[in-house]
Amino acid sequence: MTLDDLTQIRAIEQLKYRYLRFLDLKQFDDLENTLTPDATASYGGGAYAFDSRDSILAFLRESMTREEMLTSHKVHHPEIEITAQDEAEGTWALEDKIVDTGFGITITGAAYYHDKYRRIDGIWYISHTGYKRVYEEIQPRPADLSLTASWWGTNGRSRIPAGQSDD
Amino acid sequence: MTLDDLTQIRAIEQLKYRYLRFLDLKQFDDLENTLTPDATASYGGGAYAFDSRDSILAFLRESMTREEMLTSHKVHHPEIEITAQDEAEGTWALEDKIVDTGFGITITGAAYYHDKYRRIDGIWYISHTGYKRVYEEIQPRPADLSLTASWWGTNGRSRIPAGQSDD
Amino acid sequence: MTLDDLTQIRAIEQLKYRYLRFLDLKQFDDLENTLTPDATASYGGGAYAFDSRDSILAFLRESMTREEMLTSHKVHHPEIEITAQDEAEGTWALEDKIVDTGFGITITGAAYYHDKYRRIDGIWYISHTGYKRVYEEIQPRPADLSLTASWWGTNGRSRIPAGQSDD
Repeated sequence: MTLDDLTQIRAIEQLKYRYLRFLDLKQFDDLENTLTPDATASYGGGAYAFDSRDSILAFLRESMTREEMLTSHKVHHPEIEITAQDEAEGTWALEDKIVDTGFGITITGAAYYHDKYRRIDGIWYISHTGYKRVYEEIQPRPADLSLTASWWGTNGRSRIPAGQSDD
Repeated sequence: MTLDDLTQIRAIEQLKYRYLRFLDLKQFDDLENTLTPDATASYGGGAYAFDSRDSILAFLRESMTREEMLTSHKVHHPEIEITAQDEAEGTWALEDKIVDTGFGITITGAAYYHDKYRRIDGIWYISHTGYKRVYEEIQPRPADLSLTASWWGTNGRSRIPAGQSDD
Repeated sequence: MTLDDLTQIRAIEQLKYRYLRFLDLKQFDDLENTLTPDATASYGGGAYAFDSRDSILAFLRESMTREEMLTSHKVHHPEIEITAQDEAEGTWALEDKIVDTGFGITITGAAYYHDKYRRIDGIWYISHTGYKRVYEEIQPRPADLSLTASWWGTNGRSRIPAGQSDD
């Protein structure tokens, strides 16, 4: 590979990491800047599909704004390919967990993302994102499961006494 | 490092990602092409050991074909070293989860992989793979835990209504 | 990016992977060599703060030596920036799990690390590490949850019979 290949692939990885950081930290204005205006998305393994950046953002703001919904989307195993001068595609292995103390549920799952990326004026954007689930499961939160920290509720600080926690 | 070092290390990472994608998606014919014919494997922290590609494949097909067994193997923290012209070794941090609705169990664990890789005609293959567990635990699936998507059962699509899910 | 940029960023990633491997495998003497003498740390989302390598090591040895405490810290999504000749900063997405059969609890969580790195005589060290939690939760270990392997208790070997496990 050329140095430029490695640099472009790394730029696309950084784009995906920013997108997910903005998603899990509910920074939807920042997230908007990671998408092309005509971006399409297929979430929930195709259950929820959108055909513009505006409709994607409307959906995310509608479904993910509540601070009782704590989400963790982690991607692994990037397999990214530059397919044209300013086009790329990529596969990622997702693991995600949703802790929702409002609805009293936990959702966990794994999936494979298939994304498309486009470069405009030297900057990479997501032009399509979507995934297909390997598994997904939901469970009511048991009474003896305690939330001990959250980004918004405790400013990210643990309430577990040292000695029982670690590190 | 040289550009070739970075390129070769990346090729080995891509190999591992393909191997795990084929494993979790039960594409055993494709998985076969990631191994040398004399590949050895030590799974379960040494509990199940094999000394050829054929015996590895026979074991995987035997133990992982059932579509009620949904697996997610995610590797992190690659520490890969080119040890000779066409030889390399690597350490990876694994987290894995097995959702088995047939046996009614969930298994989760973490481990450190120690792999060996060999390059033949310019292509990298896994010549040894094995891991040692940091922890592993098993639990019967509780009655209120519901599977809401699977690659084979729902074609990867979530059955959770929008608004309770996300993204 | 230049080849040196890519090489230095990779070296910092490798540093973080070593640090976490030493942490989860309780190799505290090795871990010491990943930190500058004046390193600072802010664990638990700020609940436990330290201002020297010695005090960090004393805390880790005190809180994490017990072999009934099995930990898995996995980082994702590196966003690393070289900020000066021998200085860098980085953001990582953490997922961690603590299986503590001594206290009979499981802790799981997600967080964003913000680290600082310094290069001394050509080698990168962690000069600050700290994170803020997206969520953290704790639960007593239920009676039907069985530990089937651990690094120290079973030498990393699974006690689950083949056929119920995989891979």
